[in-house]
Parts: sequence; structure tokens; C-alpha cells
Amino acid sequence: MRMSELSARSGVPIATIKYYLRDGLLHPGVATGATRASYDESHARRLRLIRALADVAGMRLEQVRSVLAAVDDPETSVHDALGSALMPGSPGADADPRTRDRADRLIDSWQWTVEPDSYNRDSLASALAVLESLDFPLSDEMLGRYAEAMHGIAETEVADVPTDSRENAVVHGVIGTLLVEPVLASIRRLAHEEASRRRLGAATVRRGRRSRA
Amino acid sequence: MRMSELSARSGVPIATIKYYLRDGLLHPGVATGATRASYDESHARRLRLIRALADVAGMRLEQVRSVLAAVDDPETSVHDALGSALMPGSPGADADPRTRDRADRLIDSWQWTVEPDSYNRDSLASALAVLESLDFPLSDEMLGRYAEAMHGIAETEVADVPTDSRENAVVHGVIGTLLVEPVLASIRRLAHEEASRRRLGAATVRRGRRSRA
Repeated sequence: MRMSELSARSGVPIATIKYYLRDGLLHPGVATGATRASYDESHARRLRLIRALADVAGMRLEQVRSVLAAVDDPETSVHDALGSALMPGSPGADADPRTRDRADRLIDSWQWTVEPDSYNRDSLASALAVLESLDFPLSDEMLGRYAEAMHGIAETEVADVPTDSRENAVVHGVIGTLLVEPVLASIRRLAHEEASRRRLGAATVRRGRRSRA
Repeated sequence: MRMSELSARSGVPIATIKYYLRDGLLHPGVATGATRASYDESHARRLRLIRALADVAGMRLEQVRSVLAAVDDPETSVHDALGSALMPGSPGADADPRTRDRADRLIDSWQWTVEPDSYNRDSLASALAVLESLDFPLSDEMLGRYAEAMHGIAETEVADVPTDSRENAVVHGVIGTLLVEPVLASIRRLAHEEASRRRLGAATVRRGRRSRA
């Protein structure tokens, strides 16, 4: 296909495609004339990956470049390439040690294997620390329920990752991880809306006593 | 207790407490002298609610005021007071009608009752529209799994809302809704990390063919 068609199909402006070509993020097409080249599915797929990394994961171009290098390296597993796309760095040597222990206990109880410096483990520890700082009770039992629900969901989701190409696998992983989060959050809130209406919908919960005596 | 103790216990600076008192967000203490007053649990509870609304839900003071009015009105159910804290307005008359229908079908299939102009329904429709715009496949079956998982979680969470006071109920609902989201998201990513390692951890997924002939 011509560059104009590649642009129309991918939604990436021609000027941006030319920039990616000059910059080496996108491989050249097959020359069909002095100033023309022909592009194919591999270019469309690569553009989709670049856009997912830049627009969905919010990466700077140098980070995009490093993920593309991982995707292109056959010695790097898709798991590791996806990791480079989703865990650009570790946020939290400063994570609260107490909630970090709690995160570790949860991970161990499910026998999950995660990287020692896993970004996700630190994120969980930080999220738990915020709740603790607000005296919000979150029991081990409740945490276990969350893990059970997410375990089932994650298994199915990862089973759905396409393996026809490494690029498609990473695109799917990035979009599925980041942009399904708001879907899940909205569904949880809708389920809350129903449960809350049933339990708290009558004006009967007594008011806290006030001492405006 | 004295104002200094109220400040220390709640973490709210004295100047801010004075501002809330002048502004009527916080009810006066009992005068114990010309310039002194005594405060009690009702003040600590009210401050916690104001901070949850302002800091966690990110509300402006006029929105905080309107939620406090709902909390103080015994004719308003806790469900509705919580709704005013979590659904300040509807984002989406402009939600994609197709994904809005999809959200409605999910809600109907679970026989959830939600407000006709529910913020949560519109949020779900918008989140689904983003995925569609990126050609990300999300089957009805998968959406059903999400609903099943969140239904179970939400039931337990709402059952845990304290009803000793309307203020505590709203604080719990706000923090539990908003700040448990990152906990769930982190746990989902940890479960992904495990499932991905098992399925995609070997460097065997074949590369997409490139036409650099």
C-alpha cells in the first residue's frame, strides 16, 4: 500500500510516519520509484504498536525505542517484552516496608512468581499504604477475595493474548492491561450502585450524634 | 478535646479547622471560655469526612458543602448521600450510543438497578468506546466474567460499610470506592505477571514477518 493508505488505515498522520521512518522506529518500505515506496501489514502492525506505547502507555520515544528493541530481539521472551512496555521502572524502593510485607504475603499465598523488583508489587504496597494512612480497614480476607477474583480474570485475559506476532501480543497486552482497568472500575461501581441501593437505600441509618447541645 | 488535639488527631491544620468553623462546614464546639471551646468525636468524624471529600474525591468546597447537606438531611438515604459524593455529575450525554447500549445490556443481564443518568453507566460506555476505537476485542463473555467478579466483590464491600453514623458510612464508601481501585489494579497486574510468565515466558512466540526483503 502507499503511504497515504497506511496513514488512513492506521490513523497516524503522514508527517508522523515520515518521522518514524527517518528515526528508524519504522522499517523502510519497498522502493517502487525514486520517491515512492510500498508498505504492508508489517508496517501497519508496527505503527499500531508505536501508538499503543506512546498514546496508551504514555511513553517517550526513547522508551518506545527500547520496547521495540525488546520486541525485535528473538532472544527476549514476549513476557519480558511486555514487561518492558508495562513496567518501565521501579517506583518504590521507598515503599512502606510493612505494606510491602503484606503484598509479599499475598503474592506468596497465591504462589505467584514475580520479579524481585516488580513494579506491580511496589504499586500494591503503595496503594495499601495509602489506605492505612487513612485508617481504612482492609482485612486479609478481603485482600484474598480480590486476589481470587483477579487471578481468574488474569488467567483468561492472558490466554486471549494473540501470538500470531510478537508485536500484536505486546499491543494486546498494553491495551488490555491499561485500558481495561477503567472498564473494571466502572463495572465495580455499577455493582456498588446496586448493592448500595439495596442495603443503604432507605433513609434509616441513624445519624451520628452531634454535640451541638 | 481542645482544638490543638483535634488538629493533631485529624491531621488537619488548626488554620484549616478555623476556616471550616467560620465557613460552617464544621459545627461549633462547646464554649469553655471567652476564646476557647471543646470539641468531641463528632468534630473528628466530620473533619475526616471533609478531608475524604476534598482530598480523596478531589471536590471543591462548594461540592463538599452539598454532600454534607445530604449527609445531614435525615430524609436523604445514605445511598443517595454516597451517590452525591461519588457521582458529582454526569459526564456523558455524549457517550457513544452503541457502547451505551452494550453497558445497558450488561446492567440488564445482571438485573442491576442504576439511575437513568448514572455516571457509572456513562463511564462504562466511555471506557468501552475507547477500547473499540483501538480495535481491542472485548467479548460479551469476557464482559460477563468481569461483571461476575465485580458483583461478588461489591456485595462484600457494601456489606462492610459501617452504619454507626452516616458520616462514617460516606467516608468508608468514598475511600473504599476510590482508593481500593489501585489495589485491585495492582493485584490484577501481579496476577498477569504470573500468568504471562507461564504462557509467554519462553522466547518462542514467532516474530511477525517483516518485508525487508
